[in-house]
Amino acid sequence: MPPRTDFAQERCPVARAMAVLGERWAILILREAFYGVTRFDAFERALGIAPNILAARLKALVEHGVLRKVAVEGNRHEYRLTDKGREVYPAFLALKQWGDRWMALPEDSPVGSVIEVVERSTGRPVEVAIVPAGTVPPMTVRDVKALPGPGASPALRERLETMHKDRADAG
Amino acid sequence: MPPRTDFAQERCPVARAMAVLGERWAILILREAFYGVTRFDAFERALGIAPNILAARLKALVEHGVLRKVAVEGNRHEYRLTDKGREVYPAFLALKQWGDRWMALPEDSPVGSVIEVVERSTGRPVEVAIVPAGTVPPMTVRDVKALPGPGASPALRERLETMHKDRADAG
Repeated sequence: MPPRTDFAQERCPVARAMAVLGERWAILILREAFYGVTRFDAFERALGIAPNILAARLKALVEHGVLRKVAVEGNRHEYRLTDKGREVYPAFLALKQWGDRWMALPEDSPVGSVIEVVERSTGRPVEVAIVPAGTVPPMTVRDVKALPGPGASPALRERLETMHKDRADAG
Repeated sequence: MPPRTDFAQERCPVARAMAVLGERWAILILREAFYGVTRFDAFERALGIAPNILAARLKALVEHGVLRKVAVEGNRHEYRLTDKGREVYPAFLALKQWGDRWMALPEDSPVGSVIEVVERSTGRPVEVAIVPAGTVPPMTVRDVKALPGPGASPALRERLETMHKDRADAG
């Protein structure tokens, strides 16, 4: 086998990122966290994932410092995004953008995107773009919200409305 | 097992994107393609990947429409990015940004990033940002180039210079 170059995995930040985010469940768990899920049972319900697998994936994400496990009232726990976890969001949104454009399911095409992401303060749709460094004000996952897109089912609409209501109640 | 919601894999564009890009070699092969690699032997040399695995991964990327296999002179082939493939770049760059910031190897920290991505026309560093849709001029992989960062080894510097020279020669 030829020698690896400096591009090889152990030197490449993208390869290192994918070592954490490339695992199928990891990105789906983060997706739920971005949309406000914090409780084990809520991740389980949203993802339809076996509890033993969910427990293992959450443990790995906590070990990687992407989520932190916080004790809350009633001997329960929440899994909350760390700064490291929140900063995955631009990559997540870029993957969503590409998936919406290039990986649409046949039944998507007539109805369009399932989720629309908009700026919380203005309601304007957002996108991920390559820009000269430092030329646009940084927008984070906290500055946006997920709305049901044209492709969303009634069940998803209801779920998103509940999520936003819970957030509003939480202050 | 609880029923899957609309967030579940088959409806989620991110899950669909990860089905193509989440495979470890896929993102490394695309990385090389973004940096100008097109030939089987060049991918093999850059990645230190077994030829049978490389052949299988390239075939999958062609089937997914991310690369296309083009016959060139001398009974050889090139693997070229399609529009679908080129549009993975913002997600790739967002993953790089996150990896550089949050997944740095201990030996990285003193020396900094291995690769710096700059705007081809101005030499300004670029970054991936979340912006209101349509508010910044679209920049693609064709508008940027990879320069050796402070963490780059002499071997990588040489390789990047050769790549840029080849591109310049190609017009």
